[in-house]
Amino acid sequence: MNTDVAGRPPPDPNFAARVVDSFSRQTFMSHIGAELTRVEAGLCEISVRRRDDLLQQHGFLHGAVLSALCDDAGAYAAYTLMPPTASLLGVELKVNFLAPARADVVRAVGTVIRVGRTLGVARIDVLGIEGQGEVLYAVGLQTVICLHDRSDRTLDRIVGVEGS
Amino acid sequence: MNTDVAGRPPPDPNFAARVVDSFSRQTFMSHIGAELTRVEAGLCEISVRRRDDLLQQHGFLHGAVLSALCDDAGAYAAYTLMPPTASLLGVELKVNFLAPARADVVRAVGTVIRVGRTLGVARIDVLGIEGQGEVLYAVGLQTVICLHDRSDRTLDRIVGVEGS
Amino acid sequence: MNTDVAGRPPPDPNFAARVVDSFSRQTFMSHIGAELTRVEAGLCEISVRRRDDLLQQHGFLHGAVLSALCDDAGAYAAYTLMPPTASLLGVELKVNFLAPARADVVRAVGTVIRVGRTLGVARIDVLGIEGQGEVLYAVGLQTVICLHDRSDRTLDRIVGVEGS
Amino acid sequence: MNTDVAGRPPPDPNFAARVVDSFSRQTFMSHIGAELTRVEAGLCEISVRRRDDLLQQHGFLHGAVLSALCDDAGAYAAYTLMPPTASLLGVELKVNFLAPARADVVRAVGTVIRVGRTLGVARIDVLGIEGQGEVLYAVGLQTVICLHDRSDRTLDRIVGVEGS
Repeated sequence: MNTDVAGRPPPDPNFAARVVDSFSRQTFMSHIGAELTRVEAGLCEISVRRRDDLLQQHGFLHGAVLSALCDDAGAYAAYTLMPPTASLLGVELKVNFLAPARADVVRAVGTVIRVGRTLGVARIDVLGIEGQGEVLYAVGLQTVICLHDRSDRTLDRIVGVEGS
Repeated sequence: MNTDVAGRPPPDPNFAARVVDSFSRQTFMSHIGAELTRVEAGLCEISVRRRDDLLQQHGFLHGAVLSALCDDAGAYAAYTLMPPTASLLGVELKVNFLAPARADVVRAVGTVIRVGRTLGVARIDVLGIEGQGEVLYAVGLQTVICLHDRSDRTLDRIVGVEGS
Repeated sequence: MNTDVAGRPPPDPNFAARVVDSFSRQTFMSHIGAELTRVEAGLCEISVRRRDDLLQQHGFLHGAVLSALCDDAGAYAAYTLMPPTASLLGVELKVNFLAPARADVVRAVGTVIRVGRTLGVARIDVLGIEGQGEVLYAVGLQTVICLHDRSDRTLDRIVGVEGS
Repeated sequence: MNTDVAGRPPPDPNFAARVVDSFSRQTFMSHIGAELTRVEAGLCEISVRRRDDLLQQHGFLHGAVLSALCDDAGAYAAYTLMPPTASLLGVELKVNFLAPARADVVRAVGTVIRVGRTLGVARIDVLGIEGQGEVLYAVGLQTVICLHDRSDRTLDRIVGVEGS
């Protein structure tokens, strides 16, 4: 995909490098072993490999790991369609959990539904391969806010004004 | 609080020990340094101390850490009001992010709104102390499903049938 | 579509008649002029024509009308895949509003993501035609609960027990 | 309540008149018989009386009526804390349904959690009196966007630019 939801080219042709840079500064994502596995205009995929330190009480991947993948996959999908001088913050996230995640590798695919000047909305599917087929573990809907003319490396100025 | 939302005593007087045991088996929670800091009938608080490996790109606590605290605080609040022979799984979680989390310690307080035979609903506040006052970082609403006559240590039988 | 999400035939071959009957008893839907415009296994579409008594303060279709269409489109999509002796109730609904609805006819398309023995989850798109193209006005995610061996004409017995 | 969530007076001392005026232009609300029953700084209550044309298939008040009350109660709660020259649009709404609504009068109470320059977040409780006590029928969380320097009577200029 090389265009946004309305068929326009993304405002920043270097969107992929911008996403890679921002993701690499998220220490929480490396702490859980999450990797950025796909970046296109309006789409982002984040994947994680099952590990013994990511589980809930029954031995499945913790739902909070699925939520974390949703959060980043949706937000960075929106970020691909924002101007090069913008940063973003999460506004809200909703996740429905559909089945316990048993796959070795679980991936969240975020797809932009809408990006305006201020807000972006993405839908996210969380999937994994079990046996012969792919299983849908969770679905999400997310809203992010675009912060114009703010560095993605520090938000100190903006959060004094708006805080979201 | 020693009664449920309807003023009845919880069906399991040993609910706190049951929550502590279940939480201790969640390897993801210890991986992020989360601790169970309060358990009452219909209420659960989970706290985390800010660490360099829990951050997002601007240096704030990652929103996914706040979501993770919400997830457990709401679910275990509901679990306090379930029978001793039940386990539970998350159905869905919604989180609104209100402000970047800068406090040294962030805590999520889950409070049960309703527990029926099958479903439980909780609301969650995520808070921290900054300077002179307490700041509300996020709010959540969560649904969990009660799995009757199932061990909280393995769900293999139930997930074959229902999966949620 | 003649099969459910897992490729199985729906448990009730007369699902469409069951949905039509249930919808026809929803006086609120006829009060707002909503019509059932499509029913398939795992899918339901509800449409409404713009009227002067369905608006918000700026003269657009009220967001609550879009939510109402989501609610029914998602719930009846799930209902198509439930047994003939079951009824259902809504558990929760999330709607993201993407653009003011200006079309003459607005339709919500609900698609089942998952139906288990107890819970169903659907995603919903709300759409309308403006000028040369179709506009996505809102998206939703919904959870419903299946009430087994209960009449869809009265729930008095079940709500005494579970209430959700 | 005469101050906002942070203890400041609302930016428009005539906020109540502004809410009454905006609500009176929502033809959908009068179509369902909804009334504005309480307006304070950071709080709004909308009520509806049970009528035969507001029901779902089992004869309870339709969940979409509860969602509609949530939508307006939350949005107008936020509107009380916005400047006199601003209008607003809904961004997203989540509702959890807790029990079938049997009361003669059902009311939604929206309370602002946070209002920034751009976004507002409210929580909503939907309640009614049955027999000796009050029953909580639904809870909601909502996000709205503040549109600065736009008339609440027409949004034509703003929606051309942003659309949300």
